[in-house]
Amino acid sequence: MMSSSSKTSPWTQPESAYPQTGLKVLNSLTKSKVPFVPREGNYVSWYGCGPTVYDAAHMGHACNYVTFDIIRRIMEDYLGYDMNVVMNITDIDDKIILRARQKHLLKEYSAKVENLSEQLVGEVSLAFVEFVNRQLGDFVEIKLGRKMTNENDWKEFARAIDYGKDPAFIASDLKAPMHFNAAKTTFEALSVARIKLESGQTGKAEASALLAGAEDALSQQLDRRHGAEVTDQRIFQDLASYWEKEFLEDMDALNVRRPHVMTRVSEFVDEIVQFIQRIIDNGYAYEADGSVYFSVKEFDGKNGHFYAKLRPTAKGNAELLADGEGSLGKEALGKRDKGDFALWKRSKPGEPRWASPWGEGRPGWHIECSVMASEILGQQIDIHTGGIDLTFPHHDNEMSQSEACFESHQWINYFMHSGHLHIEGQKMSKSLKNFITIKEALKKYTARQIRMLFLFSQWSAPLYFDSESMEEAVIVEKLIGNFFANATAILRDSRERPAESEPRRRTLAPELELLEALKDTQAQVHRSLLDSFDTPTAMRAIQDIVSRTNIYLQRGRDLIDPQVVQAVAEYVTRIMRVFGMTNENPAHSVGWGPSGSGKASQDAADRESMLLPVARVLSDFRDAVRELALTGGDKQSLLKLCDKLRDQDLPSLGIVIDDHGDGRALVKLADPEELQRERERQEAKAAEILAIKQRKAQEAEEKRQARIAKSKQPPQEMFRTPEMCELYSEWDERGIPTKDKAGEELTKSKLKKLIKEYEAQKKLYEKFMQSQEA
Amino acid sequence: MMSSSSKTSPWTQPESAYPQTGLKVLNSLTKSKVPFVPREGNYVSWYGCGPTVYDAAHMGHACNYVTFDIIRRIMEDYLGYDMNVVMNITDIDDKIILRARQKHLLKEYSAKVENLSEQLVGEVSLAFVEFVNRQLGDFVEIKLGRKMTNENDWKEFARAIDYGKDPAFIASDLKAPMHFNAAKTTFEALSVARIKLESGQTGKAEASALLAGAEDALSQQLDRRHGAEVTDQRIFQDLASYWEKEFLEDMDALNVRRPHVMTRVSEFVDEIVQFIQRIIDNGYAYEADGSVYFSVKEFDGKNGHFYAKLRPTAKGNAELLADGEGSLGKEALGKRDKGDFALWKRSKPGEPRWASPWGEGRPGWHIECSVMASEILGQQIDIHTGGIDLTFPHHDNEMSQSEACFESHQWINYFMHSGHLHIEGQKMSKSLKNFITIKEALKKYTARQIRMLFLFSQWSAPLYFDSESMEEAVIVEKLIGNFFANATAILRDSRERPAESEPRRRTLAPELELLEALKDTQAQVHRSLLDSFDTPTAMRAIQDIVSRTNIYLQRGRDLIDPQVVQAVAEYVTRIMRVFGMTNENPAHSVGWGPSGSGKASQDAADRESMLLPVARVLSDFRDAVRELALTGGDKQSLLKLCDKLRDQDLPSLGIVIDDHGDGRALVKLADPEELQRERERQEAKAAEILAIKQRKAQEAEEKRQARIAKSKQPPQEMFRTPEMCELYSEWDERGIPTKDKAGEELTKSKLKKLIKEYEAQKKLYEKFMQSQEA
Repeated sequence: MMSSSSKTSPWTQPESAYPQTGLKVLNSLTKSKVPFVPREGNYVSWYGCGPTVYDAAHMGHACNYVTFDIIRRIMEDYLGYDMNVVMNITDIDDKIILRARQKHLLKEYSAKVENLSEQLVGEVSLAFVEFVNRQLGDFVEIKLGRKMTNENDWKEFARAIDYGKDPAFIASDLKAPMHFNAAKTTFEALSVARIKLESGQTGKAEASALLAGAEDALSQQLDRRHGAEVTDQRIFQDLASYWEKEFLEDMDALNVRRPHVMTRVSEFVDEIVQFIQRIIDNGYAYEADGSVYFSVKEFDGKNGHFYAKLRPTAKGNAELLADGEGSLGKEALGKRDKGDFALWKRSKPGEPRWASPWGEGRPGWHIECSVMASEILGQQIDIHTGGIDLTFPHHDNEMSQSEACFESHQWINYFMHSGHLHIEGQKMSKSLKNFITIKEALKKYTARQIRMLFLFSQWSAPLYFDSESMEEAVIVEKLIGNFFANATAILRDSRERPAESEPRRRTLAPELELLEALKDTQAQVHRSLLDSFDTPTAMRAIQDIVSRTNIYLQRGRDLIDPQVVQAVAEYVTRIMRVFGMTNENPAHSVGWGPSGSGKASQDAADRESMLLPVARVLSDFRDAVRELALTGGDKQSLLKLCDKLRDQDLPSLGIVIDDHGDGRALVKLADPEELQRERERQEAKAAEILAIKQRKAQEAEEKRQARIAKSKQPPQEMFRTPEMCELYSEWDERGIPTKDKAGEELTKSKLKKLIKEYEAQKKLYEKFMQSQEA
Repeated sequence: MMSSSSKTSPWTQPESAYPQTGLKVLNSLTKSKVPFVPREGNYVSWYGCGPTVYDAAHMGHACNYVTFDIIRRIMEDYLGYDMNVVMNITDIDDKIILRARQKHLLKEYSAKVENLSEQLVGEVSLAFVEFVNRQLGDFVEIKLGRKMTNENDWKEFARAIDYGKDPAFIASDLKAPMHFNAAKTTFEALSVARIKLESGQTGKAEASALLAGAEDALSQQLDRRHGAEVTDQRIFQDLASYWEKEFLEDMDALNVRRPHVMTRVSEFVDEIVQFIQRIIDNGYAYEADGSVYFSVKEFDGKNGHFYAKLRPTAKGNAELLADGEGSLGKEALGKRDKGDFALWKRSKPGEPRWASPWGEGRPGWHIECSVMASEILGQQIDIHTGGIDLTFPHHDNEMSQSEACFESHQWINYFMHSGHLHIEGQKMSKSLKNFITIKEALKKYTARQIRMLFLFSQWSAPLYFDSESMEEAVIVEKLIGNFFANATAILRDSRERPAESEPRRRTLAPELELLEALKDTQAQVHRSLLDSFDTPTAMRAIQDIVSRTNIYLQRGRDLIDPQVVQAVAEYVTRIMRVFGMTNENPAHSVGWGPSGSGKASQDAADRESMLLPVARVLSDFRDAVRELALTGGDKQSLLKLCDKLRDQDLPSLGIVIDDHGDGRALVKLADPEELQRERERQEAKAAEILAIKQRKAQEAEEKRQARIAKSKQPPQEMFRTPEMCELYSEWDERGIPTKDKAGEELTKSKLKKLIKEYEAQKKLYEKFMQSQEA
């Protein structure tokens, strides 16, 4: 142990008689890479901070959970540790309480609104003014020199502010832009509502539009006025359950392995109470006004304890501490020291509550993790993980609590923190509006592409999620995907060829070279992964062996040893699988699949997703055939059904039917997307042909119309039109010109030509007159 | 190192600065479990003896390759070594030469035979006598007191011998029963041919039957007479290629991972020649009569060398050595010592040949492995594996050759031998007729069931393959399979439930207990696998945790924490996957599957096997509908088509269509086997109902016939039949009895009854007469 006055906390390297893998991890407790030694043989206990479930999970969550999923998989699947991963679900939290109550009260309020009225507009207007003064008060006073007194003050304030550039606005409160936008929306909804009201449009729809626009202002005001009246505890649980389910679905979509044990705070309140009591009994916490606080002064430096091991410099940072205490806990009566933090919070009216020796209340945020982790994993844990923003106060407080409870000095042996997510160059935060939900991200990129980005980042460094870095990830994903496709084709080809036609290949210098390169790759990957999960270096080694093998593949099919290609491809597959890059059907995470004997055991999920759509189409077709048979439909209707099946229903399932002369159609499977594109191409072509046809028809019609128009003209008038009068000066009795404009006689040939034209028109005109008579 | 005069060879434990897994392996070189230390970090080189490809692979092959596949998977997937597994294909071998030549010559001979003739029967008869004297000569002389001179001697010999019991017959030559059966078949074919010949049935078919029955005798005789004339080298290669392909298919079917590198002897002849030259140059081999022999005397004990490290006691065992030399190499001229063995064999006419400094010839059996292993893996190899029957002379000679070539002392660091296969209590051998091909075994059991048996056997111990032990394997397979099915259902149910309806569960004592048991299981499995791949102990631990979890599952759905069940099921899945028990589609060994975005990337193989049958049925149905439409079929035919689709075609694919009143059928997927059984049950029921109907109809018919018979009888004669005459003694004019047998008057009531019967019959008779008149 170093001098105890040292700024950094002491850390003891665990010992084990067991063979070790050689893994080193970057430990937040030492800020250095240290040998990883699990406490018990091959068994690794791991506690990871889970989500607070009150809203949709975003890419910041993805960053944390995918990063640690990769590390978990490396430990579990590559290094072969027997893991026990525990994650909590925070389902008691001030954010949940507020959100649930606001949602509940707004719903109740909205239910009573029948139509748009002066009264409603007035109430919303009040809520709006209150909202602006509460959330943007500082700025309002700067710009207006006073608080806002009514709705119309907004215009002046809004004109004066440009929140995108205003440095004060950005620096002082990160949430300001979000509130500004909410206020703006409310103001606009109010303006619209007033116009509707004047014009007599006062229906339910108009009222709902106002309520929707004023959601934030109204629900916050309602909560301030009526929050304390909420008594139904189910609303908190329902909100949490809903978002927990959503969160797990997102994790499944990202191919994140579920923890072995998932704990909900609401299910561990008894244990939390006991745990707090032990801390009080040990002299590190005290009750005040129905709440219990941890006494940093009593703990830090006493009995070898150390407070804020992870961020000693943050000790006493009021802002960070306040954030950790939650938005409903600000008026803490009896807290002895600013740096103290709540273990148990007295519940005010409108807050969920559990019985305790200190009165009705609920657990503080940090205590839950100390308790649940220890309950499941015991009094010392190998690994604890979480996002970098949780280091202080959350993780530091967690450790202090547990060490205060157990009177121990190293509750966690290895603490790992994932880097912060940056989106398009900026730290992700909801207030900056660069907040992206996981579902949104998955619309743009596949889970594999996102994971590829993570693999190319050091897990502890900031992660940059932007279109540029994603483009790179997509390129590498394509490189490897193409390699897999080629290798698969080569292996299939070699397996399907008859023995006689297979070229006699052998392992020669190029193969031995490739095998040697594979060996180097394996050594490099192994070294990298042992070096604190250095996936970027491992991925570059993988990229390299793939490129080398691609060069080898250019030798041509008959000069390739498929066995060596398989060796490389299987290794790359193995590592991709370890990294969670293979598509694991969650339904397949358990079980050993069909035994290969008989259809009976074929996996039901697969069968359903694949067979059912075709079966449905078949059945629909049959339904239609039966109906025709029963209602006496004709042959043409039957054939039309057959054509529709071939041309529309089956191609969308990737099934192609080619009708053959012998009456037995040929069935083929194809890529449905390719078929769709092909169909679109054909439709485009057909449309083009149709357009040409239509243009031609139109031209013909125009010609015909022109001809008709022409045939209506009597021949004696044809050279008397204004244009013709510009050319000629004298005409004979038939109306044929004899002299040109200048009064000169027309030449013989010219005259002849004009007479010819006259005769032609005469015939045309006679025909027209006949048709008119008929 | 122990005293050099020690009987056992010295073995040096490899050293490495690298972290070790703690694995110990039973090393045939020390006959003890020793720490496994790979030469280069995490990289493990492995050479496994592959098959000689001249016939179908049998369960003995399965025993060897599945056993080492399990060990390889444990090393690769569980312990995480980077492996390089090399396996040879022996495509130059006396057995291949003989088989290919015999097949070739018999085919040539058969092609010339047009019909059954005296000459053909005579030739076959000669071949038969020659065969018996060659293959069963010893027994013939014992039983007959002389050699067999003609076909008819067989009867006496066959009568005298009972090979199933004759101890001399069994003990002295293991191949005798096989030859006895071949001779018996030939004799019977000859007898049949003679009868046919006499009766004038002399067609091609009769000739072919004789040739088929006499295959062994004839092809051996032909080879002895014309083998030396065969010059086309392709026949050897074609036979080998065919059986190589078959072998690999069998391995795929058994889920045996392919080696990283597969080498064919025929592709390494140049290297073999160079290798032999180095041994000669080092003074450990000599040329004689165009062949090259290894000099055991020059090697053993010289320069620290040790011959026959694996089986020192077998040194000089003539029988074993001869077997290793091959059936075509018996007359080795110039071999200095009985214990010497061929490195290079001079090729006689009719044998494949390659150029060498010692004239045209081919490699000996043992040298190929020394050369190919060293070419690919270098001059020292971590692991060498093979069946126990290969230890001496093959593996001992291999090692001596390599150590003689490289002047080294430990070519192989770890030698592992799989135990011998016993079938129904006896060592498997073709001669005992307990030889089972892999394809036959896979008809009876699934690859997974067979592998389960192997997992429950120590890999180095004899393996007992019989219905009793397989039954046990099947039971454990069912236990685990059922567990997987239950766990999957629980997990699916929990995922599919809406958040609100999910019971609030928590991890309590039963869950913590189960997790603790899982931890113990993991430690036990880990310990066992490190202990020289002790899969039986590991499997018992797995069985135990499965049983414990089954007990937990009995708590009922709402009291179960699905997360904990998943933790156990995923661990069991992981270990089953490591053991190769999961069904791995070989098409999936490479690549990362669909990205989950769109159907485009869905696996083609899966799609084909699942979709195509339904697509085919759909298309056939459509074909039929079209044909009816085009040929003007009626409604009834259409409806019949629809019924057939529902009742026959779809159920066999596991698709159920229920017609509903609204004209839109309900589509369901079901287990096709279950549907089949259901259909059989329904058919059985229908058959039963039909039988009852038929019986009733028959009874009715019988009654009708009886009635008709009765109605033919005139009423006056009805009481005059012989039977009636036994009852009565007097009749009135109508023929109605008046007195009984004893002469007593009949009672009034009796008389009344008889009159009633008379009147009824009278009516019946009148009716009958009327019908006759009509």
